[in-house]
Formats: sequence, structure tokens, C-alpha cells
Amino acid sequence: MIELTIDLSNNPYTVYLEEHLLNHFSSYLSSLDHMVIVTDSGIPLEYIDCVKNQLNNPTVFTIPSGESSKNLTNYQAIIEEMISLNIPKTATIIALGGGVVGDLAGFIASTYMRGIDFIQIPTTLLAQIDSSVGGKVAVNSRQAKNAIGSFYQPKAVFIDPSVLQTLEERQLNSGLGEMLKYGLIADPRILTMLEAQNWTDHLISLIEHSISVKRSLVLEDELDQGIRHILNYGHTLGHAIEQYSNYQYLHGEAVAIGMAYMAKKKAFSPRLKTLLKKFNLPIDLPYSIDELIPYIVKDKKIHKDVLHFVEVDALGKAKIVPIALESISTYLKEVV
Amino acid sequence: MIELTIDLSNNPYTVYLEEHLLNHFSSYLSSLDHMVIVTDSGIPLEYIDCVKNQLNNPTVFTIPSGESSKNLTNYQAIIEEMISLNIPKTATIIALGGGVVGDLAGFIASTYMRGIDFIQIPTTLLAQIDSSVGGKVAVNSRQAKNAIGSFYQPKAVFIDPSVLQTLEERQLNSGLGEMLKYGLIADPRILTMLEAQNWTDHLISLIEHSISVKRSLVLEDELDQGIRHILNYGHTLGHAIEQYSNYQYLHGEAVAIGMAYMAKKKAFSPRLKTLLKKFNLPIDLPYSIDELIPYIVKDKKIHKDVLHFVEVDALGKAKIVPIALESISTYLKEVV
Repeated sequence: MIELTIDLSNNPYTVYLEEHLLNHFSSYLSSLDHMVIVTDSGIPLEYIDCVKNQLNNPTVFTIPSGESSKNLTNYQAIIEEMISLNIPKTATIIALGGGVVGDLAGFIASTYMRGIDFIQIPTTLLAQIDSSVGGKVAVNSRQAKNAIGSFYQPKAVFIDPSVLQTLEERQLNSGLGEMLKYGLIADPRILTMLEAQNWTDHLISLIEHSISVKRSLVLEDELDQGIRHILNYGHTLGHAIEQYSNYQYLHGEAVAIGMAYMAKKKAFSPRLKTLLKKFNLPIDLPYSIDELIPYIVKDKKIHKDVLHFVEVDALGKAKIVPIALESISTYLKEVV
Repeated sequence: MIELTIDLSNNPYTVYLEEHLLNHFSSYLSSLDHMVIVTDSGIPLEYIDCVKNQLNNPTVFTIPSGESSKNLTNYQAIIEEMISLNIPKTATIIALGGGVVGDLAGFIASTYMRGIDFIQIPTTLLAQIDSSVGGKVAVNSRQAKNAIGSFYQPKAVFIDPSVLQTLEERQLNSGLGEMLKYGLIADPRILTMLEAQNWTDHLISLIEHSISVKRSLVLEDELDQGIRHILNYGHTLGHAIEQYSNYQYLHGEAVAIGMAYMAKKKAFSPRLKTLLKKFNLPIDLPYSIDELIPYIVKDKKIHKDVLHFVEVDALGKAKIVPIALESISTYLKEVV
């Protein structure tokens, strides 16, 4: 078993990582009562049953799979139903699914009766290496992704890479897009492992390295006010592409395009493109910068009319570049 | 100027208390830009203008006055409009109004883009001595009061007792109901001052004493997991009465009934009743315990099928009494 401790002073917790952990995760819980599972329609029933069968009479909520489920309507419906069922403040919410389930379930946990316990069991590669760790929970507003949310750390994260065997290839590749980001901004060994022909042999190590990068940034900057921004490499464009396409692009696909765009004048660009192609990830911007600007200027990270872009000059070396709102178009069209 | 520091390690802030403070509160702010005022239709326009005129081009949201405005519909509508207006993460929300405005505006602040700054300018006595201090923010679900919320401390609280001159007498009396609670659970000097014929001469001192009681309990137990529960004296019944009456009873009125009920076998009961009558507060339970039980068993504070009631045996001495869910009816009908 690999155990990665996220040693935040107020909210320390452990990420447990092991093949077939789903079958016995409950041995790490202090209670099996009052459990609420939030999952989605894309999760194989055998996984849901495997989790349910380890708990005492849990309540299960299943939302439709897809980004559009991460909204206040589902948030309110689940909360009202939890109140109807007299789910107490001592209950624990288990998010069993990808990032959509984790973000929605986490936001419910952070606000139900002013906060109840929360556990992540991520079932997509993207959620395993990114959204399940770090405490960002949210729903989308009608106009902006993740615009409504909190910082709320889970009590534990259980990662079982064997569940990725049933993940659609497109979803797996989307997760690999985010994994490439960790390689680019902080740990080029990730790129080397992914370049290997037998890269799947390194999967557990790749997940561990990815989480380790995220962990060090979260520990340094839990509330995302500084250095944690470098996790946003490729994301400013990526979020705009996701929204403009009405989420036709998966998150890791949109980030892949964003990274390829931000890297296009850098020496490592050909190496990145080769890797993106290897994993069937898109490279070219499908819209003009002018089409994306209205979404970019709604970015949550705008601070005093300045947006922080992330650039990677050399592999593993990221920097934050503040750009005034009125200069974003020029920056993206001419400088990057 | 009276300054009461709420010295929480992560979120310290100051409560400023002075007659006519509304006219110059902004001198205590570090910035006057990107201000969002949330207020309600019952607040005199002169107060809103007084606040607006001290700020640089603030945005103002006005909700209908009354408890029924504290819902997810208004929450979502204001957040979506804030996003449309490109209100940035550096903005500050100012809650100008009573507890409904403070709770709703605070919950918006706690979740808009994962949290922005928040200032309380309470305009009712109840909000001045209770809800504006302590960081509890929430909206009501369809079924349960304050069921959706967070702990989120303001950056400052500005209390101007002179605004109470335009408060309806019934609202003022509701606040006095909550003030009596502080006297009963912790500081009997509050009762003595309220008994004086010229009690209004002591208003600032009464507010200061009330906040001081709350402050010491919040500092000891910010997340309401223990001793802070004693603030709930009269509230378990009170909340049930508020809900069963569909909020026909004001909060302090419902709490008055709850306190009178919990005190009925205690030596100080006649003194309490005399004070409740002095301020036109209700005393007798308007519904049967059986009618209220369904609301009581949905109380957020139920923990492992136990609800903590608060009893005051002698003035200033409160204790927490755990009652198993199945015994609540007997406890309220026979023991209290």
C-alpha cells in the first residue's frame, strides 16, 4: 500500500493507493454507519455494490454522468432528499466517481448542516491524480465553471487503479492529459515514463508522482493564492474551450489544447506534441482566441484586473505571468 | 468607540460598536472598490444611500424582507448576476440588514468563487447581538432552517445602535428575546439592566454585554461542537415553532416561548415571565409538543440519535442535557 499524507495543519488526511483497494477500503474507516454514496450513471454497478456491501445500510444517490450534472439543481435535490431521510450531521458522504461526482458531493458535504465528513473514491484517472486531492469542491454556475464552491478537504482518498480497466479510452486519455501537465510543470520523469512503450507498467508510479506534485503545491498554498496557480498550466484556455464547446471537450482534452498552445514557441513543444498524439489528445485550437476571450475574462483567478497565466520555459520549470485584462488578447495572439 | 476583537486564530476580526457609526464605517476599510451590498426591501433608503455613498460605485442587491427570502433561489440569482457583472474574487460583500440578509449574503460570500471577503452591518437588534457575530451563515432548505450553510467569519462587523430607532417595535422586542437568553445562560446583569425603567439608556452596554457572551463561546468552540451549544437555550423548541408557524413567529418570539417553556419549573420563571411581558413577547406554547416533534427531530444538532437540550438551573448557569431521540417527547412533556 502506498500512503501519501496530505499534512495540512487543520485538515490532515491520507491518500491510499493500491490495486484492488476498492474491495477493502472500508477497513480504514472508523465507522460504517450513516454513509451517503454519491455516484453517477456511468459507474459500473459492480463497483457501487462493492462499496455498498462494505457499509451498514448506506444511502445511494446516482446522478447522470457528465459535466452538466454538476449544477445547483442536483445539489439542492440531493440535500433536500438527505433532509427528508433525516441524514444526521454525523453522516459521511462518499464520492464514488469522477471529478463531477467528487466536486458535487464535496460541495454538498461542505455545506450540508454547515459541513459533514467526506471521502473520495475516484474512479477516473483524472479524478485520481487531480480533483480528488486538494479540497477544491464546486458546482458550475450557468455561466462559469466551478464558480460556486468551497475549499473543503476530504477525510481520506482511496485510489484503486484497477478500476481504470473499465474506463473508456477517451476518459483515460483525458486523465493522461492532466498527467502530462504535472510532468511539464514539475516532474519530467512523468514524461519519460509515459514515453515508454510499456507505460502502463508504470501506472501506479505515474499516479504516485502526479499526486506528489499536487501535494507539495497544496501544502504550500492550500487556498490557491500563489504558487498553486502553476497547476493551472493550460487551464485558462482549457476552461474557456470546455465552456465554449458546451463541454464537448473533456477536461484533459481541453487542457491538452491549452498546453500545446502555451508551449508552441518552446523547445519542448515537439516532444509534447508527440506525447499528445500518442494518447489521441487534441493539439490544435478549435476556436479563435477572439471567440474564447469572453470566457477567459470571466476566469475566477482574475485579481485586480490581472489574470495569471502559467508558462513553462523548460521542462519542470513553471512560472506565473501576470497579464492585464486588456492585454490578454495580444498576449495570447502575439507573445505566447 | 467600543471595539470587541473576535480573536480566532485563522480568522480574527473586530466588532465596532458606536452610535452613528453607519456615517463613517468606511474609514475602517482598506479598499472601497468592488463592493457588493446585499440588503432588503425593509431597510430605509437613507441607510442604503449612506453606505453606498461611502463606496466607489458599489453593486446593490435588494431582496424582499422576511425569512422566506433566505433560500437557494435568491442565493443562485444573486450569484449568477454577480458573475454576469464580472464581480471579481477580490470583491467584498457587505450585508446591510437583519439576520436574513446577513445569513444569505454570508453564504454567498463563503461560496462565490470559493470564498470572498464579507462585512456585516446589522440593522436589527437580533442581528447586532447574535447572527452578525460568530460566522454562521446559511440558507433554509425547503424543509429545515439553516440546513445549507458554512462557518465563514466576516472581516469586520459594524454596529450602529442608532439605526434601531427606525426598527419596528415588534422586531426590537424579538431582539430583546435573544438578549434575555444571554442574561439567562451567562450574564444576569443583562436581566437587571432590562428590568430598569430607563433600560434604553443602557442599550449600548446591553449590546456589548450580549456580544461579549457570544464572543467567549465562539472563541472556545468556533465550529459549535460543544459549549457553544448553550447559545441554543430555548432554540430547539423555538426553531420548531418558527417552522410549524411558517415563520409567523419572529425568531426572538419563538425563542421566548421556548425559554419560558424550558424554564417553567425553575425558580427564576416568574422573573423571566415578567420580563417577557414587559417586552410584549409571547410566553405560552401555541402548539402541542406532538405537533412540534416532527420538526424537532430534524434538528441539525442531532448527533448519534441524541439531541442536546440546554437547561438553565440558576441564572447564568447553563448546562447541556443529552436526550435520546425516542425520549424527546417524554422529556418535554414530563421532565422539563
